[in-house]
Amino acid sequence: MPTTDYSIGILQYIPFFYIIWSDDLLSASEISVVTRAIEDDNSLNEGEKQQLLLWLKRDFPPSNEEMKSWQRIISNSDVKLVENDTYPLTSLSQRLGNSNAHQQELNDYLKHIEINLGIQPNHYNHLFDVEVIHEKSSDQYSSTILDGILMGSHKSIVTDFRKFLDQSIFDWSIQRDKEKFRAKILKQVKFLGENGYGAMAYDEEYGGIGDMPAYAAIFEHLMFVDGSLAIKFGVQFGLFGGSIQKLGTKKHHDKYLAETGKTKLLGCFAMTETGHGSNVRGIKTTATYDKTSDLIVIHTPGKNDNKEYIGNALHSKMASVFAQLIVDGKNEGVHAVLVPLRDENHNVLKGITVEDNGYKLGLNGVDNGKIWFDQVKVPRTNLLDKYGEIRDDGTYFSAIKNSNKRFFTMLGTLVGGRICVAKGALGGAKMALTIAVKHALNRRQFNDSIKIQEDLIMDYPTHQVRLTPKVASVYVYHITLVELMKRYSDNSKFDKREIETQVAGLKSIITWFANDAIQECREACGGKGYLLENRIADLKGDVDIFTTFEGDNNVLLQLAAKGVLSDFKAEFNSAGFTSVLKLLRSQLADKLSTINPAYSNKVDKDHLYNPKFHKHAFSYRTRRLTYTLAMRIRNYIKKGIPSYQAFLKVQTHLLVLGKAYSVELAYEMYSEFCLTISNKEYKTLFEKLGTLYALNQIHTDASWYLEQGYIGGTKSKAIRQRVERLSTELRPHIEVLVDGFGIPEHCLTAPIAK
Amino acid sequence: MPTTDYSIGILQYIPFFYIIWSDDLLSASEISVVTRAIEDDNSLNEGEKQQLLLWLKRDFPPSNEEMKSWQRIISNSDVKLVENDTYPLTSLSQRLGNSNAHQQELNDYLKHIEINLGIQPNHYNHLFDVEVIHEKSSDQYSSTILDGILMGSHKSIVTDFRKFLDQSIFDWSIQRDKEKFRAKILKQVKFLGENGYGAMAYDEEYGGIGDMPAYAAIFEHLMFVDGSLAIKFGVQFGLFGGSIQKLGTKKHHDKYLAETGKTKLLGCFAMTETGHGSNVRGIKTTATYDKTSDLIVIHTPGKNDNKEYIGNALHSKMASVFAQLIVDGKNEGVHAVLVPLRDENHNVLKGITVEDNGYKLGLNGVDNGKIWFDQVKVPRTNLLDKYGEIRDDGTYFSAIKNSNKRFFTMLGTLVGGRICVAKGALGGAKMALTIAVKHALNRRQFNDSIKIQEDLIMDYPTHQVRLTPKVASVYVYHITLVELMKRYSDNSKFDKREIETQVAGLKSIITWFANDAIQECREACGGKGYLLENRIADLKGDVDIFTTFEGDNNVLLQLAAKGVLSDFKAEFNSAGFTSVLKLLRSQLADKLSTINPAYSNKVDKDHLYNPKFHKHAFSYRTRRLTYTLAMRIRNYIKKGIPSYQAFLKVQTHLLVLGKAYSVELAYEMYSEFCLTISNKEYKTLFEKLGTLYALNQIHTDASWYLEQGYIGGTKSKAIRQRVERLSTELRPHIEVLVDGFGIPEHCLTAPIAK
Repeated sequence: MPTTDYSIGILQYIPFFYIIWSDDLLSASEISVVTRAIEDDNSLNEGEKQQLLLWLKRDFPPSNEEMKSWQRIISNSDVKLVENDTYPLTSLSQRLGNSNAHQQELNDYLKHIEINLGIQPNHYNHLFDVEVIHEKSSDQYSSTILDGILMGSHKSIVTDFRKFLDQSIFDWSIQRDKEKFRAKILKQVKFLGENGYGAMAYDEEYGGIGDMPAYAAIFEHLMFVDGSLAIKFGVQFGLFGGSIQKLGTKKHHDKYLAETGKTKLLGCFAMTETGHGSNVRGIKTTATYDKTSDLIVIHTPGKNDNKEYIGNALHSKMASVFAQLIVDGKNEGVHAVLVPLRDENHNVLKGITVEDNGYKLGLNGVDNGKIWFDQVKVPRTNLLDKYGEIRDDGTYFSAIKNSNKRFFTMLGTLVGGRICVAKGALGGAKMALTIAVKHALNRRQFNDSIKIQEDLIMDYPTHQVRLTPKVASVYVYHITLVELMKRYSDNSKFDKREIETQVAGLKSIITWFANDAIQECREACGGKGYLLENRIADLKGDVDIFTTFEGDNNVLLQLAAKGVLSDFKAEFNSAGFTSVLKLLRSQLADKLSTINPAYSNKVDKDHLYNPKFHKHAFSYRTRRLTYTLAMRIRNYIKKGIPSYQAFLKVQTHLLVLGKAYSVELAYEMYSEFCLTISNKEYKTLFEKLGTLYALNQIHTDASWYLEQGYIGGTKSKAIRQRVERLSTELRPHIEVLVDGFGIPEHCLTAPIAK
Repeated sequence: MPTTDYSIGILQYIPFFYIIWSDDLLSASEISVVTRAIEDDNSLNEGEKQQLLLWLKRDFPPSNEEMKSWQRIISNSDVKLVENDTYPLTSLSQRLGNSNAHQQELNDYLKHIEINLGIQPNHYNHLFDVEVIHEKSSDQYSSTILDGILMGSHKSIVTDFRKFLDQSIFDWSIQRDKEKFRAKILKQVKFLGENGYGAMAYDEEYGGIGDMPAYAAIFEHLMFVDGSLAIKFGVQFGLFGGSIQKLGTKKHHDKYLAETGKTKLLGCFAMTETGHGSNVRGIKTTATYDKTSDLIVIHTPGKNDNKEYIGNALHSKMASVFAQLIVDGKNEGVHAVLVPLRDENHNVLKGITVEDNGYKLGLNGVDNGKIWFDQVKVPRTNLLDKYGEIRDDGTYFSAIKNSNKRFFTMLGTLVGGRICVAKGALGGAKMALTIAVKHALNRRQFNDSIKIQEDLIMDYPTHQVRLTPKVASVYVYHITLVELMKRYSDNSKFDKREIETQVAGLKSIITWFANDAIQECREACGGKGYLLENRIADLKGDVDIFTTFEGDNNVLLQLAAKGVLSDFKAEFNSAGFTSVLKLLRSQLADKLSTINPAYSNKVDKDHLYNPKFHKHAFSYRTRRLTYTLAMRIRNYIKKGIPSYQAFLKVQTHLLVLGKAYSVELAYEMYSEFCLTISNKEYKTLFEKLGTLYALNQIHTDASWYLEQGYIGGTKSKAIRQRVERLSTELRPHIEVLVDGFGIPEHCLTAPIAK
């Protein structure tokens, strides 16, 4: 029977030891923190120090009897646990020995342990059978500062825009009738255009500020108002306006761009066909130049060759139509042509048929339609001719001789839209997570006794693991997208093809992430999440299609993987793959370092939390997958298997590589950003979020790492435990973290988020 | 330079060898199949045999030059590949040497190899540069026979019901206005009731046939008509009627059951409260017996204590209200009381307030509402008193003395509803998969050359891996649910508590599976899947909530895990957990067999396809997780940690165990069923589906198996490859497999499924 007659010096350490030994997560570095503190603590005499150090030996943990006696000491002490003390555990511990201990007199060594072990009240408040003075969340961090870090250089534009959104025209309401819904959204889009928000990415002479990143930041905020608004806004200003801006020349800009920005000209972006979604190069619509009349004839040849799913199709006066351009009998490949759709009375013009796509799973405020062209004639000047023109003598000219290269150069200019799609999806995830977290901080359910208050559902470990890694991922992806947009908009520095690959990969993983997050939030809010009034349901329906439009994720990931394979140098979109095969040889020279057993079994917290470990794990995965993929393709080709078939055989491998590459990229961009945060406390928080993201990603793909022997079973388990632990550690800050997303109060209409 | 001047004997083996060596999947058992065939093939002379056997050595595979020469022989042969030949490869191979070879003269040894290696045309049709005569799908199996196997003993009822559904009242249409939608669904429910389909589970004297499994089979089919119909049908007949049937006594049956079955009495099931969803035992509504007036007073005490999300609330005349029964000042726990809600003019009665829950993500044809009771008085006889009664002398009596046990006995009788929820979700998955597969067999996209026809998207390996394991899972879960319903309805044989645990687990994994499958189908159909007309969108919205209602999946899985922990013997729903702790000791005695390296690295096809391997893997996982869970809980308790806190600490572990247990159970039930299939060919197909399910499950949880050392890295990779291979092998049968779900043609309204 161990003694319970401890000195005050020892007593103050008892709660710490009880917590430390009630879990088995104690690592060598944590033991060293405690050891050091005890050795330095002058309030202890030598006997006390020796006793405490004895209890710290991992091979001889305190007996169960000892543990129980400690529990009794704490339970019988009459000391209350005050969650919102700055050092709640130190405070509780010292009051055990001295009921008058005050914050200002707290033992620095105990405080040091409390901070360095990352012990949070919600770890242990159930352990002690004492009264807990609860707090909903900690005020250690400020959501305003977090928000400021996320807004970055767009702080003033975003802040103004949030205020601008606080007008009744943007009030959210349930919309079931598509006609009324579309009318409402159209009004909002026009209001935004009239107030200059549509043209932000255009040059000043066309009403803008030439700032695509600012446009993207605004765009994301529209998701907080309504998904349909974001998408219709994007179609009008980003796709239609963007095609004029990027594919047209000065004559088009002068004639249409300012009008488009102000929504005086409504337009649509007619690329996708019923028969050709992902395979844009195979579209069938033709634009045939007739030299005699000097007109271009737009035509839909077959029954599945109509334009499909075209946003804004019912409200538009004009379309930017993608078609095979035929000049003098020769197909010059896909080009865009501006085609008027309706007259000033909004009657459809001759030869044009538009049909409503009808009701959809979401985004019913967007008027999607099908469009057929029957020998529709437009002036030659309507060809958006930046990359390929029909000259006055009726001949075709392009500075880019290779038609493939030309096609992908044109498409490449529109990649900004994909970044916006990812930003929009992330905005949806932010909204859903904010609602789910706030609900979980209000809702109580179950408990060990019906006598005392039920627990907040946010206090359940399962709930923490469901939501917290997703909140961390939002931080990582937000920063990633800001950086990506910066690179995309900066033509001088970055390789265009590399950016395209990055966008393809990140758009895929981020839109999938957003859907997963929204679904998790729906379930985490139970039946309440299912009600339209609580907003998550609409987000789910709206964001769903983000995985498909502006490039189907499965197709994009293959594109990304092929980019990685070719080191971003080769022309991969063509079917030949010849350039890839040339590059495989150099890839194969890439030697992978061998992982030694000490590394693959290293489970120390310092190691697991070290960004170097995460980066190495991500980079190892990408390189290994690239190497094995290249090997497989080479072997197939060597046996005479046609390259198209060889690529089919490795299709699933391509997807895996595409994802791995994108995760590595996101984490790298985020880590670099963390280095730039000047406030040390916030830097630490951001790093912790990054660590949770990284460990959660490695955990999610643990089977691959285990297969490769990169991590051993023990390390894999330790990583899983760390994900759970970090989710719990962040519990006191979870509300501040979602408030940091900066969703305007007036947009958060969900009753359960109040 | 290898010779290309082969004899006819060798020539006929060339395509086989080309296929075999173009992949590296060849296992020892496969080599032995080929070796044996060559040795036995009398059409070959000794020299030919030796040459062929030489090419079969794994350590000395044919050179790349040899492979290329084979490819040239095949490409230059002018032989066409006819996909719908019974033995397409044998036929092609023999025609290489003899252009007049006919089916009936085919070499039996080649046929033997073709069958045993499971080589399918879609493996190799791109390999040979020859013209392919395509087929959409094979006619090796009949969907009618598959359907018959799935219908089992309910064949005639189901067949009749499918015909019954082919009436205009069941025509599907897009519904956006909830009032109109609800009116339509109400009409359909009444029509079903009037035609005797509502009462099927009730006894004959109340208009039924006393057949709950038949009722469940019918119920699933309603999902093909509309999710709202299925749910409203389930509320009226299953929940409201079921509560009268299962919790009431003869006086209630006589008075209400026939009326309910015929929908002359519409009712609702008022259990959930705003403040208490999953924790039913904590509901606050009171039913206080007033001895003086001999009435029971129903009352909603606080603002969050109203009944919430009650289906049929706006159409009902009566509610089965769950409330704390207070007799003589003592709370006897939760009981159900029949409470009239409206008069014959459908006016709400005094003291009752009903409020519409409004629009939801899905199921808008179901009228969910909130209900408040303000001192509403009902006769004593309205208490559903099978398990607890108020006697004439005003005293409470129950044969079940323990109030916990009584509560769970009552709830247990309603477990059938959970099985129906899982069946409904599975019906939704069937519908979505049928639509997605049919779409993938119509839709073409991309190819290596624009000259020839684009590939069907079903021919893409990624598409096969996305959809085929899910189709296989539907087969497994369908059989599982039929068996589960059989056990549930057979009170004589099975332990009630065990069935409850099984239902809790299976409801969770199957409803989650259904949601994943529907989401995958939505994405697999691209933008088309997003249109309401194609039905997947509504399925997505409707089935979503199945993960939450009739028990939140996360809560149910913990229940299932606790059942496993206690060997189904203990009272686990109570908060005390005392009985569990007693049982832990016996659990800990469970010795786990050690896995030897030879086993964990065994990658032979025979082994990987052997149900014994799958069962061992599943059972090992369940037992191992149970053991480690028990150990963890015991250690916490020993240290004096309160049991409630100990269980919180292992919450994520509980979820993992709950899932593992459910997967094992499903596969076991399915395997047992396979043994009963008499037709050998169909038995083989069902076993193959089971193998795909099992390997896919192990693959999905590979990280756990790797962590435990149960499988090594090589085996893990081999399992993944087998999942891909099986998905490809089943490609020719995929349409027959979904047709086997038996969804009536008139329910398959999606234009993309035509």
